[in-house]
Amino acid sequence: MGNADYVYPSTNEYRQCAHPVAVPPPQPFFKSFKNSLKETFFPDDPLRQFKNKTPSRKFFLGLQYFLPILEWGPRYTFQFLKSDLISGITIASLAIPQGISYAKLANLPPILGLYSSFIPPLIYAMMGSSRDLAVGTVAVASLLIGSMLGDEVNATENPALYLHLAFTATFFAGLLQASLGLLRLGFIVDFLSHATIVGFMGGAATVVILQQLKGILGLQHFTQSTDIISVLRSVFSQIHEWRWESGVLGAVFLFFLLLSRYFSKKRPKFFWISAMAPLTTVILGSLLVYLTHAEKHGVDVIGNLKKGLNPPSFGDFVFTSPYLTTAVKTGMITGIIALAEGIAVGRSFAMFKHYNIDGNKEMVAIGTMNIVGSCFSCYLTTGPFSRSAVNFNAGCKTAMSNVVMAIAVMFTLLFLTPLFHYTPLVVLSAIIISAMLGLIDYEAAIHLWKVDKFDFVVCMGAYIGVVFASVEVGLVIAVAISVLRLLLFVARPKTFVLGNLPNSTIYRSVEQYPTTNDVPGILILQIDAPIYFANSSYLRERISRWIDEEEDKLKSTGETSLQYVIFNMSAVGNIDTSGISMLEEVKKITDRRGLKLVLANPGAEVMKKLNKSKFIETIGKEWIYLTVGEAVEACNYKLHTCKPDATNEDSQPWNNV
Amino acid sequence: MGNADYVYPSTNEYRQCAHPVAVPPPQPFFKSFKNSLKETFFPDDPLRQFKNKTPSRKFFLGLQYFLPILEWGPRYTFQFLKSDLISGITIASLAIPQGISYAKLANLPPILGLYSSFIPPLIYAMMGSSRDLAVGTVAVASLLIGSMLGDEVNATENPALYLHLAFTATFFAGLLQASLGLLRLGFIVDFLSHATIVGFMGGAATVVILQQLKGILGLQHFTQSTDIISVLRSVFSQIHEWRWESGVLGAVFLFFLLLSRYFSKKRPKFFWISAMAPLTTVILGSLLVYLTHAEKHGVDVIGNLKKGLNPPSFGDFVFTSPYLTTAVKTGMITGIIALAEGIAVGRSFAMFKHYNIDGNKEMVAIGTMNIVGSCFSCYLTTGPFSRSAVNFNAGCKTAMSNVVMAIAVMFTLLFLTPLFHYTPLVVLSAIIISAMLGLIDYEAAIHLWKVDKFDFVVCMGAYIGVVFASVEVGLVIAVAISVLRLLLFVARPKTFVLGNLPNSTIYRSVEQYPTTNDVPGILILQIDAPIYFANSSYLRERISRWIDEEEDKLKSTGETSLQYVIFNMSAVGNIDTSGISMLEEVKKITDRRGLKLVLANPGAEVMKKLNKSKFIETIGKEWIYLTVGEAVEACNYKLHTCKPDATNEDSQPWNNV
Repeated sequence: MGNADYVYPSTNEYRQCAHPVAVPPPQPFFKSFKNSLKETFFPDDPLRQFKNKTPSRKFFLGLQYFLPILEWGPRYTFQFLKSDLISGITIASLAIPQGISYAKLANLPPILGLYSSFIPPLIYAMMGSSRDLAVGTVAVASLLIGSMLGDEVNATENPALYLHLAFTATFFAGLLQASLGLLRLGFIVDFLSHATIVGFMGGAATVVILQQLKGILGLQHFTQSTDIISVLRSVFSQIHEWRWESGVLGAVFLFFLLLSRYFSKKRPKFFWISAMAPLTTVILGSLLVYLTHAEKHGVDVIGNLKKGLNPPSFGDFVFTSPYLTTAVKTGMITGIIALAEGIAVGRSFAMFKHYNIDGNKEMVAIGTMNIVGSCFSCYLTTGPFSRSAVNFNAGCKTAMSNVVMAIAVMFTLLFLTPLFHYTPLVVLSAIIISAMLGLIDYEAAIHLWKVDKFDFVVCMGAYIGVVFASVEVGLVIAVAISVLRLLLFVARPKTFVLGNLPNSTIYRSVEQYPTTNDVPGILILQIDAPIYFANSSYLRERISRWIDEEEDKLKSTGETSLQYVIFNMSAVGNIDTSGISMLEEVKKITDRRGLKLVLANPGAEVMKKLNKSKFIETIGKEWIYLTVGEAVEACNYKLHTCKPDATNEDSQPWNNV
Repeated sequence: MGNADYVYPSTNEYRQCAHPVAVPPPQPFFKSFKNSLKETFFPDDPLRQFKNKTPSRKFFLGLQYFLPILEWGPRYTFQFLKSDLISGITIASLAIPQGISYAKLANLPPILGLYSSFIPPLIYAMMGSSRDLAVGTVAVASLLIGSMLGDEVNATENPALYLHLAFTATFFAGLLQASLGLLRLGFIVDFLSHATIVGFMGGAATVVILQQLKGILGLQHFTQSTDIISVLRSVFSQIHEWRWESGVLGAVFLFFLLLSRYFSKKRPKFFWISAMAPLTTVILGSLLVYLTHAEKHGVDVIGNLKKGLNPPSFGDFVFTSPYLTTAVKTGMITGIIALAEGIAVGRSFAMFKHYNIDGNKEMVAIGTMNIVGSCFSCYLTTGPFSRSAVNFNAGCKTAMSNVVMAIAVMFTLLFLTPLFHYTPLVVLSAIIISAMLGLIDYEAAIHLWKVDKFDFVVCMGAYIGVVFASVEVGLVIAVAISVLRLLLFVARPKTFVLGNLPNSTIYRSVEQYPTTNDVPGILILQIDAPIYFANSSYLRERISRWIDEEEDKLKSTGETSLQYVIFNMSAVGNIDTSGISMLEEVKKITDRRGLKLVLANPGAEVMKKLNKSKFIETIGKEWIYLTVGEAVEACNYKLHTCKPDATNEDSQPWNNV
């Protein structure tokens, strides 16, 4: 930029040669309203591809939009199938033991874990836009279903009602997810920030691991609460009940699983070792129990699993019972959390492989698979990170790997369920613990602390809330702190003094650029947020204080007295009527003190509203400049040719209480 | 500004002559934390005056801080006293009938209205910093107390409990108000924006007027609800019960009151006419009833009022009953609303008379007067607008006018209460209606519609909520819409394309300045809000769409292909870890498409975090410029001397689904 190279004419009207600050051309109300709606709900402009197409083409594109399989299906090759077969079988071997384990975590019959890995993946394969997402149940949502429904209905005393409530909750979760997608309200998921999810996942993983102490130690009685204090009290109050057989078995299997994870992490080529490890422990554990008859010596086993495919369950929904609100509430909370995980996982892998997924479309797909799933004895599913990572590492090419997994699970349901009779529960606990340890991402928490302390507080709020109170409390704390941060940004905007960078007409923050020079007689303030009702009182006080401090400083050094106050409005994105009142009050204050108020670079929205509220006339159009540089030069010019024309000559000194 | 006048050296390292973008000097965590706390809670720096003073002087200044009477008392003159005497007597003549009317509105004994105009004004005179505020009860808070407590306890069936709950609620309201002030949390009141208050006051006034139909029509049975539908149904379902005597009397007095208001508005010198009118109607009405014995013909009268000063009531607080939560809730809501009115009124008159009031100090004063008041049979008081305006017009000089009013009320309590025996209730209704009509500020609503549609929606939300549901619902709706607006500002930030203003190095919004020129091969985007978790997904999609649209446009016109994307970060006040991830993803997207990402003018906070998260290294320090102008010149320079050094040469075209 450098120094400006034009000379101001010696009259007062040099502004003619500069660009005036424009009030944007007025728009009819409905056009601007439509534009705002579009920007709010359709930022990705999903209808762009439909432009200028024939109706039949439009219909086909619309069908493709909701069923992406129509898009990639015709291009599917044998090469793809080979990759998808391998990855599909790999994730099936993970899905079967994990499915059973997580169903136990939700206090549901273990077979539901298998059912849930059959129908939903088929739906997702047709509707989903991610190529890497592997569908299945997740630990956190399972735990949440268990604890939220368990508060109302005891799963062991009234298993049928509990089961029906789980289906109903899944139905509402799906309904919510699909509606969010259809209504383009996907941004609600964005309010679960990365920091919230790190803390929340870590906390939930901790809670899930603590719950496994029951299985590992072979305890019969256990607290219903999930907080760390109740659980540890429950564990240590019954030391005499601990079963060493169960404990040793659990520790051995856990060690084996962690070892395989560690090995696979070191050598990514051998990802299949950690992928196969759970199934291997299940087989080894079952064999061991079968051969030693350990089930008679304190090692609990799964027991009978019913053969056969998913029975229909749409007759089981509980829409009229007094428990409906519980089901709806559980569905809402677990649905949102499952959605956030599914979307985040899909997005991460899409970023890796350089393709794009549409959040709202994903929501419709995940929602539909849960609605259909809930009609066929499935409970809440989404795209778990661990399984999707295995899918990705196994080289999946399309969502077809989900179909392969579903077929493998179907085969298991039809023929292999008796084999799980002797599977010890302690193995399932070991599988869960090993999976959960990967979710405690302490490195991410350290990174948050380093980069952004506030995000760290959000993360810790979620973690501590989940671990010491409950999953819902943790979530509420984290979201509340996050939203508080947004509100605080607006309620307490940064204001700072600008100075002149040497040898330029550029004005920047004095704090950020210590080499800047003061401009004698002129105070330049930058306001770093929109001026809204929430900050207008604050800004009035803070601006008064800036002026006080500047005058005190000038008085103590005996320099030129203050004559002009320039507001750099570049960062003021919007203003409301309270903000305009604030500016009017500030104008009165400056007038009274014999100062001239000058605005620099107000944006389109701000100019529009200043114009409508006649504030431009109050301040005078000639006191609004395009840049801070121009404003300063104009002030300097007037400062050296004439006194500022204070409108309020008889003003008394401002009585600052 | 004009054209830059320095020539870039012909090597690649011309950046040496420009100012580099500075990362602000690192600050120790606790220092920056302390600074943030100070900016958040002490924006007005209240301790500034205590600096460099002796301890005894500090103590006296501290005492003065909490008791401003110590400051203005010594300077009080006889001249002041004369003015304050006149204004004090004027507001007393308004306070007595209004106090009785509003107490009826709260379903409390009428005498409480007089008690409440005796003790609280004395406290305020010592502690308040406003010179114009006239203390007393207000209609809206009275109505709210009536409806909120009335939901739990019937005032006619259980008057003692109801009365005690009212004192308890007042106590908690005062406690909340004083705590907000002491904890420097006054900004909570700012969340009641001007638009909210206009709508809320209008709605409350409408509801209060509707309630007066009972008194005017002399109805015996009336609905407990306050919404317009219940009230109108209640009124029109008992047409045969309407008393014409009462109706005619009410209409006549209302007409007289409105006429006096109209006259005083036309001729501000005769403000005392409208100030005296209520007392005149009370006297005329009472005389009329006394002479005609109308109380025996369907005109209800106040009846006996107990002689004597406020009895103590601190023994009556209900801290243990099951109704405690009701009292606390009522206290909180009415306390906040009363506080908002008091602060706003104090601030407006201070602005008029060019002095300054301290919001937090006011809160402590108002809170203390309610705590003390609740111990002496007073209910909730604040600084009503109407009474303060009369005070101001009557020429009050200091808070001494409140003392004069209190003495006049004391005199009334001691000697004159029997005179109110024959005062007809219909006169009180007429007084309330006439006062309430002034609160329906339709002109302000029209102004909101003209200047800011969103504020208008907030205002209407409050109005409709109050009128059709209840006062609390209206308040919740308005605050929710207001907060939604703040969140929406962050969640859906404006992004716009910048262009070059002819004959300058200034870049401004293409929409606001239609004369700007495109820069070939370069897309300049401005992001108009902080980049937070709530908008990072949106920004990623929106930025991708800007790039798509720009490439489509360039393709269709066959111009130079896109090479650089410049983000103007001037208006990005802050960034969190989700925002940094978003920038990293955008960097990957641009790399893949063979574009170069350039940042212009990131602020101190943003640079700090980009530095800590190593994003500066990812993007390259040489791609961050101080101004958009510099960035464009650097890009132009490279564009014409060499191809951009895309880091990802083997990138495939971005697969845009």
